[in-house]
Amino acid sequence: MNEFDFIDRLRAQTEARANPSEMLRGIGDDAAVIKQLTGRDTVVSADLLVEDIDFRRDSTQPRLLGHKALAVSLSDIAAMGARPRWALVSLAVPPDTWASDFVAELYEGLLSLADCYEVRLIGGDLSRAPGQIVIDSIVVGECPSGNAVLRSGAKPGDHLFVTGSLGGSAAALRLLERGARLGIHELEDPDVRSIQELLMRHLRPAPRVGWGLVLGEERLASAMIDISDGLSSDLHHLCRESRVGAILDSEKVPIDSRVAALCGRRALDPLMLALHGGEDFELLFAVSPENVPRLPSKVDGLGLTRIGEIKPESEGIRVSEGSRLWDLKPEGWKHF
Amino acid sequence: MNEFDFIDRLRAQTEARANPSEMLRGIGDDAAVIKQLTGRDTVVSADLLVEDIDFRRDSTQPRLLGHKALAVSLSDIAAMGARPRWALVSLAVPPDTWASDFVAELYEGLLSLADCYEVRLIGGDLSRAPGQIVIDSIVVGECPSGNAVLRSGAKPGDHLFVTGSLGGSAAALRLLERGARLGIHELEDPDVRSIQELLMRHLRPAPRVGWGLVLGEERLASAMIDISDGLSSDLHHLCRESRVGAILDSEKVPIDSRVAALCGRRALDPLMLALHGGEDFELLFAVSPENVPRLPSKVDGLGLTRIGEIKPESEGIRVSEGSRLWDLKPEGWKHF
Repeated sequence: MNEFDFIDRLRAQTEARANPSEMLRGIGDDAAVIKQLTGRDTVVSADLLVEDIDFRRDSTQPRLLGHKALAVSLSDIAAMGARPRWALVSLAVPPDTWASDFVAELYEGLLSLADCYEVRLIGGDLSRAPGQIVIDSIVVGECPSGNAVLRSGAKPGDHLFVTGSLGGSAAALRLLERGARLGIHELEDPDVRSIQELLMRHLRPAPRVGWGLVLGEERLASAMIDISDGLSSDLHHLCRESRVGAILDSEKVPIDSRVAALCGRRALDPLMLALHGGEDFELLFAVSPENVPRLPSKVDGLGLTRIGEIKPESEGIRVSEGSRLWDLKPEGWKHF
Repeated sequence: MNEFDFIDRLRAQTEARANPSEMLRGIGDDAAVIKQLTGRDTVVSADLLVEDIDFRRDSTQPRLLGHKALAVSLSDIAAMGARPRWALVSLAVPPDTWASDFVAELYEGLLSLADCYEVRLIGGDLSRAPGQIVIDSIVVGECPSGNAVLRSGAKPGDHLFVTGSLGGSAAALRLLERGARLGIHELEDPDVRSIQELLMRHLRPAPRVGWGLVLGEERLASAMIDISDGLSSDLHHLCRESRVGAILDSEKVPIDSRVAALCGRRALDPLMLALHGGEDFELLFAVSPENVPRLPSKVDGLGLTRIGEIKPESEGIRVSEGSRLWDLKPEGWKHF
């Protein structure tokens, strides 16, 4: 298919769903045009997914990849307590990939997730790549003016929470590296089912958009970050911006139950996966003691766990494990 | 250098120059936060540059590449008649490139161009690449509400203009393919000097930000596009969106004077380079007859040329060459 025909098809799909009083121009011009509104702030984030670094073509599927490309940026907007509104996607693919159904399926996965949150695709770029696929997903969101939840607002005494569970994505990555693949064989075997579910945590992560909105709109969180690099690294980022320390209670860290069940036989330490494994895309946030009673117990069916407390910066970032206290190093994902 | 240290350095550079009442949060959080203003529209565009497709490392320099990566997106914002305000840059580079000065120099080139227009870098992403360098540059601009100049507003009878001159970038690309390189040898030789100047048109394009602002703010242009794919293709894009035809006067097409001087000996047709060669990043726009007298003759020292007229759609898109009239096919850049 001609690239211009493909872009026309995307444009027709997105224009049909957009509100023309807000999206003044979407795909099909030199740039997209969106109306600004009094009392609102714009929140914008970009995330790259690079083949053979962030994903392997032989262990995912184009729809899942499209889903994940958007999910990682939606997660960033959620971590600001903002509402995602618009997306731009820049995609570089080799000619043989272009000639297949890959790109159409990738956009199907992406647009299907976008529809869940009424996010509209308004632009991006499409290029030939000589080698690996590269996807840059940009999400533009909004929040009431001054309401964005930064990493920098945590205070000593704040309680530290995390949504959902941790370690699942990292465990799935280890399983993929050891040859596990998506499939629907022997799903009556609970072990196989657990593995398949874990793989989906890595390959099709769910951004915590609902939690982000509740925490932002109700001004419940004093600081927030999404867990993309890993709890240890992301807690370090949050503490550094807030100039605080923290203490984590290792027994409270909500390890994905499937990880615990599967790790023993595979010489993997569930707590280490939960602390340092990245891409869980859960939200890590601080809440002042007076706001703790206002927290909902669940949003969109997903609960949260109090895993520690913010401390003065001088106390560092530590983990309590039984009677032992140890320094938590930022040992999550590093690109270089 | 550690990626987090590098990001900190970029952040310090950009924060020092930003107005904190508009840029509520730049680099250093999950997303950037910008204030929305009543009566303004947001304009946003993304452009990919892929190594070995859009540039070759052995024929450019990191500073020039950084400049160009931003210039191509600034050009899109200019083509909307809007003011560029913010930039995000997503960069994937191989580890050996990261270990060199390449990335620092690339950002120097990029930030130096950003400074010319008081554009602030507010985010992006940084990733390891297994192969080629990929740069996605996203620019967010703004304009008074309803003022964005779309591709779709041209009417039969409008005059068709282009800024600056055409064909220089395409000629430079041919010269690079034949082994020409940047250098400062024998600049007293006018031929060598012309070649060096042409190479810079390709390697360090100047976005027509000033012209875009004048045409947008004064509401002089009825439709506009930047010439990135090539005059023939971009005129087709504009005519298609406006549902009009056009006639170009071949004698009026402002061919870069250096192209004409150099092409004869190299079996290149200057008019074909000007019509189909891409990446001139000049602005192509339509102006209604009553607005023509209001056009400035120069902006930032750069003139404009009337190259044709908008016609009814039924008349197609044609070129007049002496007494001959021929159909103009869109033979500019295609990715696939």
